[in-house]
Amino acid sequence: MSEQTSLIEAIEHLPEALQNAVRGLSDKQLDTPVGEGKWTIRQIAHHIADANINAYTRMKLVATEQKPILKPYNQDQWAILEDGKNGPIEPTLTFVKGLHERWIVFLRSLPETSWAREGIHLENGKVTLFDILRLYSNHGNSHLQQIITFRQKMKW
Amino acid sequence: MSEQTSLIEAIEHLPEALQNAVRGLSDKQLDTPVGEGKWTIRQIAHHIADANINAYTRMKLVATEQKPILKPYNQDQWAILEDGKNGPIEPTLTFVKGLHERWIVFLRSLPETSWAREGIHLENGKVTLFDILRLYSNHGNSHLQQIITFRQKMKW
Amino acid sequence: MSEQTSLIEAIEHLPEALQNAVRGLSDKQLDTPVGEGKWTIRQIAHHIADANINAYTRMKLVATEQKPILKPYNQDQWAILEDGKNGPIEPTLTFVKGLHERWIVFLRSLPETSWAREGIHLENGKVTLFDILRLYSNHGNSHLQQIITFRQKMKW
Amino acid sequence: MSEQTSLIEAIEHLPEALQNAVRGLSDKQLDTPVGEGKWTIRQIAHHIADANINAYTRMKLVATEQKPILKPYNQDQWAILEDGKNGPIEPTLTFVKGLHERWIVFLRSLPETSWAREGIHLENGKVTLFDILRLYSNHGNSHLQQIITFRQKMKW
Repeated sequence: MSEQTSLIEAIEHLPEALQNAVRGLSDKQLDTPVGEGKWTIRQIAHHIADANINAYTRMKLVATEQKPILKPYNQDQWAILEDGKNGPIEPTLTFVKGLHERWIVFLRSLPETSWAREGIHLENGKVTLFDILRLYSNHGNSHLQQIITFRQKMKW
Repeated sequence: MSEQTSLIEAIEHLPEALQNAVRGLSDKQLDTPVGEGKWTIRQIAHHIADANINAYTRMKLVATEQKPILKPYNQDQWAILEDGKNGPIEPTLTFVKGLHERWIVFLRSLPETSWAREGIHLENGKVTLFDILRLYSNHGNSHLQQIITFRQKMKW
Repeated sequence: MSEQTSLIEAIEHLPEALQNAVRGLSDKQLDTPVGEGKWTIRQIAHHIADANINAYTRMKLVATEQKPILKPYNQDQWAILEDGKNGPIEPTLTFVKGLHERWIVFLRSLPETSWAREGIHLENGKVTLFDILRLYSNHGNSHLQQIITFRQKMKW
Repeated sequence: MSEQTSLIEAIEHLPEALQNAVRGLSDKQLDTPVGEGKWTIRQIAHHIADANINAYTRMKLVATEQKPILKPYNQDQWAILEDGKNGPIEPTLTFVKGLHERWIVFLRSLPETSWAREGIHLENGKVTLFDILRLYSNHGNSHLQQIITFRQKMKW
């Protein structure tokens, strides 16, 4: 399996894996930081959704424009907005499910040549569509693992 | 009821209204353009979702940064990407549902002073958070009405 | 005389007026702030040049592209860079002379329709070519007047 | 001599070298393209000035801001604007003389750490202050050489 296929599969599986990772957690557990000075499980779940909204948007911009500007977002500020900090987790699970279903239809339809298309990220500079795929596929998994590891540690 | 309250309510009600508007339509009906040279019902449904992802992202950028750049997107190009043109409609209904639930938590938590915050849209220039709210609340309703009107005309 | 003609004439006359305004001043006089917490005469002279380089560049971007991004610059930071703070004044008088000579050739060649062309300034939003002309023609004169008034006050 | 010192010296010497390169040319000679489908000597001289205005501005943006946007300019469009195509050459020689005198004061005052500072060029992505120095110092010399070589070929 190519790296590309594998990265897209990870995006395909993330919504279900995220649902499993937070299943049965109480509000109090969701609001527990996974480490000192770290986000809570709730914030991490919302952050995965916000990151992937940005990833989805950037990929479509790169697929449809010549070297579009890709706007960074301030993840720490987003994580303390009301919905990102205290909002219920179900809408985010619902949203991620639908978003990823659409996203993989898009990703699997891209011609091979599209992966080298470039955007200009205002913090990181030039990035290809493939760079964005790799970054966010791994990013989602990494945060997912953060939740799973913490649950195991807490024996929840 | 203030304009602001009313615009947020429209965002709250859109996901259910959109589900009702497309309920029971066959694939063939979904793939019918609503007028000559116009998008199909399917494309309009996907477009509402794409527009609102952009709206949600822009609002959060404006809420968390000083005069952020707000990147336009090429709606006509997005509407002919595979997922926007031929993708199944259920994922989009799912993700609109979740997105709007999060979005209204965010919108209702904003302090009154936030509505005057500004971003720099690369096509339209300076826009306030309130401008974006008004634009996209009305935009969603307008496309929703387009579907409803067309269904009535077709007696579907 | 139309406002436009008058604004372009002010740009035409500025280099000579600036030379007259600083003629015969010693280095000590040039390094005197024109008010408490204000720039020195030297800094103001260099600032006029820097502002007009930016104005010239923005106007050409607007004349040759569709809604180009117009990048603000941090005038207070530029004014404390070595050449803007302590640099000799002759090179600036020389380059303002040459810059304005080219600039007015450009300005007087623009078809009437060009003045409504727009750029997106990342701080001020949408601006027309005419807006930039008015802003910088007046800006140069205003700083020139600042020097003249201060010299009169100091009886230099 | 370090590459940096050598690149700054090339910027220091360019104005005089450019004056020598175009000295004594008639308007007709100035308006001769240096090759088929190429710019005229006049356009090349004006282009050197325009490129260096952009270089100077970009360097100051990078020196005074965190990862500023660096706006490309459309050099082919600028070269057919009235002042860039048909304008007299003296203002440009004057302007380049003054600009470079200020520019080298700025360049020689930069602390060693500044050369690694970065900007985000909307076409090329991330570039350092040193990248810009190298690019434009060589760029000026390369166009200068273009004029000299053509004059020799034409035995002017």
